[in-house]
Amino acid sequence: MNTIAENDYVLIVYREKRYFKKVEMGKSFHGTGGVINYSDLVGVEYGVKRGSYEFFKPTLEDIIMYGLRRETQIVYPKEAYHICFKLNLRNGSKVCEVGGGSGALTCIFSRMVGPEGSVVTYEKEERHYKNIRKNIERFTEWDNVDLHHGDIMDSDKRNFDAAFIDVREPWLIIEKIRSLMKGSTYLGIIVPTTNQIVETLRALSEGFGDVEVLELMLRRYKTVPERVRPEDRMVAHTGFLIFARKLNG
Amino acid sequence: MNTIAENDYVLIVYREKRYFKKVEMGKSFHGTGGVINYSDLVGVEYGVKRGSYEFFKPTLEDIIMYGLRRETQIVYPKEAYHICFKLNLRNGSKVCEVGGGSGALTCIFSRMVGPEGSVVTYEKEERHYKNIRKNIERFTEWDNVDLHHGDIMDSDKRNFDAAFIDVREPWLIIEKIRSLMKGSTYLGIIVPTTNQIVETLRALSEGFGDVEVLELMLRRYKTVPERVRPEDRMVAHTGFLIFARKLNG
Amino acid sequence: MNTIAENDYVLIVYREKRYFKKVEMGKSFHGTGGVINYSDLVGVEYGVKRGSYEFFKPTLEDIIMYGLRRETQIVYPKEAYHICFKLNLRNGSKVCEVGGGSGALTCIFSRMVGPEGSVVTYEKEERHYKNIRKNIERFTEWDNVDLHHGDIMDSDKRNFDAAFIDVREPWLIIEKIRSLMKGSTYLGIIVPTTNQIVETLRALSEGFGDVEVLELMLRRYKTVPERVRPEDRMVAHTGFLIFARKLNG
Amino acid sequence: MNTIAENDYVLIVYREKRYFKKVEMGKSFHGTGGVINYSDLVGVEYGVKRGSYEFFKPTLEDIIMYGLRRETQIVYPKEAYHICFKLNLRNGSKVCEVGGGSGALTCIFSRMVGPEGSVVTYEKEERHYKNIRKNIERFTEWDNVDLHHGDIMDSDKRNFDAAFIDVREPWLIIEKIRSLMKGSTYLGIIVPTTNQIVETLRALSEGFGDVEVLELMLRRYKTVPERVRPEDRMVAHTGFLIFARKLNG
Repeated sequence: MNTIAENDYVLIVYREKRYFKKVEMGKSFHGTGGVINYSDLVGVEYGVKRGSYEFFKPTLEDIIMYGLRRETQIVYPKEAYHICFKLNLRNGSKVCEVGGGSGALTCIFSRMVGPEGSVVTYEKEERHYKNIRKNIERFTEWDNVDLHHGDIMDSDKRNFDAAFIDVREPWLIIEKIRSLMKGSTYLGIIVPTTNQIVETLRALSEGFGDVEVLELMLRRYKTVPERVRPEDRMVAHTGFLIFARKLNG
Repeated sequence: MNTIAENDYVLIVYREKRYFKKVEMGKSFHGTGGVINYSDLVGVEYGVKRGSYEFFKPTLEDIIMYGLRRETQIVYPKEAYHICFKLNLRNGSKVCEVGGGSGALTCIFSRMVGPEGSVVTYEKEERHYKNIRKNIERFTEWDNVDLHHGDIMDSDKRNFDAAFIDVREPWLIIEKIRSLMKGSTYLGIIVPTTNQIVETLRALSEGFGDVEVLELMLRRYKTVPERVRPEDRMVAHTGFLIFARKLNG
Repeated sequence: MNTIAENDYVLIVYREKRYFKKVEMGKSFHGTGGVINYSDLVGVEYGVKRGSYEFFKPTLEDIIMYGLRRETQIVYPKEAYHICFKLNLRNGSKVCEVGGGSGALTCIFSRMVGPEGSVVTYEKEERHYKNIRKNIERFTEWDNVDLHHGDIMDSDKRNFDAAFIDVREPWLIIEKIRSLMKGSTYLGIIVPTTNQIVETLRALSEGFGDVEVLELMLRRYKTVPERVRPEDRMVAHTGFLIFARKLNG
Repeated sequence: MNTIAENDYVLIVYREKRYFKKVEMGKSFHGTGGVINYSDLVGVEYGVKRGSYEFFKPTLEDIIMYGLRRETQIVYPKEAYHICFKLNLRNGSKVCEVGGGSGALTCIFSRMVGPEGSVVTYEKEERHYKNIRKNIERFTEWDNVDLHHGDIMDSDKRNFDAAFIDVREPWLIIEKIRSLMKGSTYLGIIVPTTNQIVETLRALSEGFGDVEVLELMLRRYKTVPERVRPEDRMVAHTGFLIFARKLNG
């Protein structure tokens, strides 16, 4: 349904600000644009404007950016979107994720592989594992995430359609991961430093082909029609993406 | 299945080059790396290396970049991926696309909305319409594209979960498109020039909120571990992306 | 001389922080790295380290970034350096500057045209004019700036080797400026918005050739050898630079 | 003088093309825009238009880009301009350059330090040394370059106001160079790869402060006022710039 219901999450937009809130009866939202009682919103169609506030149904990007509880650096949407397609995911794919972080990419993978797909995620740190579990329980729409508190090195799952690594030393597990992937499928890796690119490229030199290293930059513009120009500051770096395809043999 | 079959499309990687070919019996591939008879590939697992050639199962990106027949400038993968998620598409979404071009974004939308979704695409030019039809017949995996040779202004479809415009003067159809969209959903637009950003922003000032203008830049790196550095040249511009959410009333 | 003297300006570097200070007897510098009495620095060679503080002789860039009193947005070093050479300035050049701002570019022009050159600067606003005068008195090394509180439209100076405009509506004065420039010399313009690019290009369509529009982006990297990577955030936009060469006739 | 004389170099602009030519009597220029006899240009003011050709007095940038004979990769203008100011050069400075390449940066340093300055350049390869000598003889305006065919390690020149290194393994000579520089002055280094950044940063960890690593990107725009947009392709990488200030002791 497209009307606001009790206990829905709602995205409140007020000028440059974004608030991700739960519609709770008897409670209200207090911002610089005034007070809104949540009960007044229930039953109203999403996309409503009240005073200077706009109320939208949160998209997956809103959830990742404003809803997810973060305990780690996350894979940001601009990289996550690119990863999903580069790994050639679709409804029904089975993808392996090593290093779940806060579950941002997990949620995006869940969306991408759909009701018939499966996301198998490994996270070694118990605290992060628990946080991811909470995040996916709250925010994924299909029950397609298989979350493991443990080490990929102990895994015996096989026949993955794609794999992704977000750990500090990916080169230590590349050979293992490769053994779990189908031939010709994509491995993706994210690393923040160029030193890590060097080590990763070395580890990919055997058993993989068509290696690619890239970074994505997103530049936002001001939206006043009379003064169109890039914003003053931007995120300059989140991570380098490395992709390679499994060769047989 | 993950083995090469007769009449499959295959991506051949040879150093910096990529070839998108059909595996036809009795035919062969002639490149600077030597001759390969396609019949020798049939039954072999994807990801095989023969001499300096690597043979991969084409991903959607390979199809868009090397397989699709182009009669127009296309929406490139890096933008298309971002658009899919920004429009909050998922398995089951119903998205409206105005200006089908060569069908690149159509194919990517088809992948994103999955077997239960639907992509409704309008293309006015007959020649392009026919090319898109051929491309989606060859390359989409689900029968979820509803392609129209006609003008969106004559459409009476409604309740779209998202909409995207890729025409020269998007501002002329924004009001119409808006009437077909559900409340709170996203409209996306791509334009190549800043002059078009100005006009589009004016048209979005009524009936939409949370307007965003951005561009994505993708920088590739050389993959020799001893000499990691950005490639010498890059694509500097494909288009500006504009996003806005429908406000009610 | 290369030793610190009383009343010198000195740049103090402390981790990520920069302080531009005057060496005043009886005074001291108080920072998170401890207290330094200026009198202890006098007579010491520049480049000295005391505790975690480093004391350098300010470069022109230090002066512009940390010393200059700003009352306006300034032309930043990265653009200013490019402008100087693009305008083909050298020791002895005579350059016209319209819109002095806070005098940042004026100081850089002064450096570039050297003891035998001349910088003729027009600033209409009295408050800015006074601030520029103070800045050039404190910071230029040669007496080569001819600062005017007034309108370029009233000027009768001629034979400029180059000209630069930094005002809101450059198109209104381009014809006038052109009349003051030698044939074949460069006009440079800085504007923050794409709307201004459009108007400026229109005004340059007569009487100028070889028009160029560009922007410069500077990306800084972290300097820890074990973790080389771009900094997280960067300045995404300062201004668009427009250059054109005067055609005769 | 500002009129075209016999044996002058002239920059011919024809649409997107640039020609750097010598005005030789009895000869003519043949391009897609028709034939021009050089003798018809003599005595005419620079900035003249003949048919679709525009004739300009070459700037230093024109010389570097179109006039200089290149035998190596050069330091490009956008980096060279930044380097000049970052090294705090001015009329009268004495700068040391190690690795002359084709003399592009040498010419730009010569311009920057003016008639009273001096550029001391070391180039080990004889072939490059000879080419640089030819380039500076043809293109520098002041006799301020002291070009050496030899190794900086054998040099005993001292008291440089700045130094710049453009060789494959800068870390091998940093200590030597440091001993030739005044306290507090800047050392600049250019390297193409991130691996070289790592080694260079290690070598700078002793004896230098305020280390900076950066890269500059220049994006050009189309100049049609009705369709302002970035050009399709750009140079994505020329080199990383590293700067550090000499600490005493």
